[in-house]
Amino acid sequence: MNAIGVFDSGVGGLTVLKALKARWPAENFVYLADTARLPYGSKSLGTIHNYCTQNINYLLTFGLKAVVVACNSASTAILEKPLACSVPILNVVAPGARKAVEISTRQRIGVLGTRATVYSKAYVHAILRLSPDAMVTQAPCPLWVPLVEEGWIDDPITNLIIYRYVGAILKHQIDTIILGCTHYPVLRNSIVKVVGSEVALVDSSLGLIEDLEKLKICNEEKSNIGKIKLLCTDFSPRMEETFRLLLAETEYDSLELIDLNAEHLG
Amino acid sequence: MNAIGVFDSGVGGLTVLKALKARWPAENFVYLADTARLPYGSKSLGTIHNYCTQNINYLLTFGLKAVVVACNSASTAILEKPLACSVPILNVVAPGARKAVEISTRQRIGVLGTRATVYSKAYVHAILRLSPDAMVTQAPCPLWVPLVEEGWIDDPITNLIIYRYVGAILKHQIDTIILGCTHYPVLRNSIVKVVGSEVALVDSSLGLIEDLEKLKICNEEKSNIGKIKLLCTDFSPRMEETFRLLLAETEYDSLELIDLNAEHLG
Repeated sequence: MNAIGVFDSGVGGLTVLKALKARWPAENFVYLADTARLPYGSKSLGTIHNYCTQNINYLLTFGLKAVVVACNSASTAILEKPLACSVPILNVVAPGARKAVEISTRQRIGVLGTRATVYSKAYVHAILRLSPDAMVTQAPCPLWVPLVEEGWIDDPITNLIIYRYVGAILKHQIDTIILGCTHYPVLRNSIVKVVGSEVALVDSSLGLIEDLEKLKICNEEKSNIGKIKLLCTDFSPRMEETFRLLLAETEYDSLELIDLNAEHLG
Repeated sequence: MNAIGVFDSGVGGLTVLKALKARWPAENFVYLADTARLPYGSKSLGTIHNYCTQNINYLLTFGLKAVVVACNSASTAILEKPLACSVPILNVVAPGARKAVEISTRQRIGVLGTRATVYSKAYVHAILRLSPDAMVTQAPCPLWVPLVEEGWIDDPITNLIIYRYVGAILKHQIDTIILGCTHYPVLRNSIVKVVGSEVALVDSSLGLIEDLEKLKICNEEKSNIGKIKLLCTDFSPRMEETFRLLLAETEYDSLELIDLNAEHLG
């Protein structure tokens, strides 16, 4: 098919897919949402790594030019234990860390993510490699993914929960915050209300696009002729609603339920 | 091993295990927490049914007298499409519905559960079979499982979320509410604050114990000599903390990480 493969535990990676499609409208994308096993962020890195291997093997059957791991927990698992693969695997952690170091004026950087991402310290290591004197403060925000999946966007209760998670790290005079989970850009407006507009928010798409540009493998035509094929491991009408909500005006060509166990585990 | 098998997507079913152990201290229990694939309640009934089949097949290798499905979403999936099994399979939906009908004075019954449980209408059908004139009002509460897993018990934010979910059904002059998810009894104190003490709260353990008593298969000795073996499909130190928190004074003998895919899917 000659496409870019993208995967996430669920709908969060659609924020990355949208950004990629906006940059390369003529490119083909195959997006796999592992909705039967979501969320990843509360699980161990070993289990997440097994899921990544299965997802990537499945995606490779579509004839890919590259795989984008559009999930921070999965990126973290793969950074800890790299996977051999016939095409480049791009993660969202390295470009997110690089962008934060570029943007931050005082190198006081906050990282918000799932438990798996925060406990792994993947962002801390990536930032300190680029900026050894940076001060990095992390906070896990386990309820944000369920809040996004529930659709409570820009909601007073969501704002309270954001305040509780973020309040603790704001004390450290942070000037830049990494949204270290692909679900979190959906909550951007609410997060700005809590942290104020003087704190820069970094999501991973921007740095990821630069990484992909360097590979020079994407179709650079400016007309919108590429296809988007969505795959999911579990399907319900509500999930399709959430897909449409998060993709908004970005249209997809097909949505198909697949069984990873049947074809790739046996 | 001659034991009772119990399973849930995660830690919620421990509320059922505790109640069973308190009733039958001399009995052996094997509890499987499918933590690698939790939660079940947001997934489709077909996917949940596949997970149940794998869990039960695994548990049967321990030499069981019965299997208790200590998860409402899983019970719902099995009620919709019964499983052939060499030992009795007990679910939590039928006894919960029966207890609610027994307790309710005006047969105005509320059901709180996950999306999978609520959309299946399993409780509605079970209640109307016993009490055709009952008025049943349901509300899905998708954020409660993540809140319990996060440990925000008796917390102002949790109370706000409980109020939002429950407020809508309270208008219907409900006198009895079924806590239709095995995680929910953990939130009982907060739920009472919102619904008031005049509304009866039914959790499934009570009716389930009656069902198991009828089978006359459990060890009725009153001394505490039975073993509790815990199995989980994903493990992290934090999960073990939550296991201990929810089991409280109920002690277990072992906690083991297992791989359902390796042994039962291939």
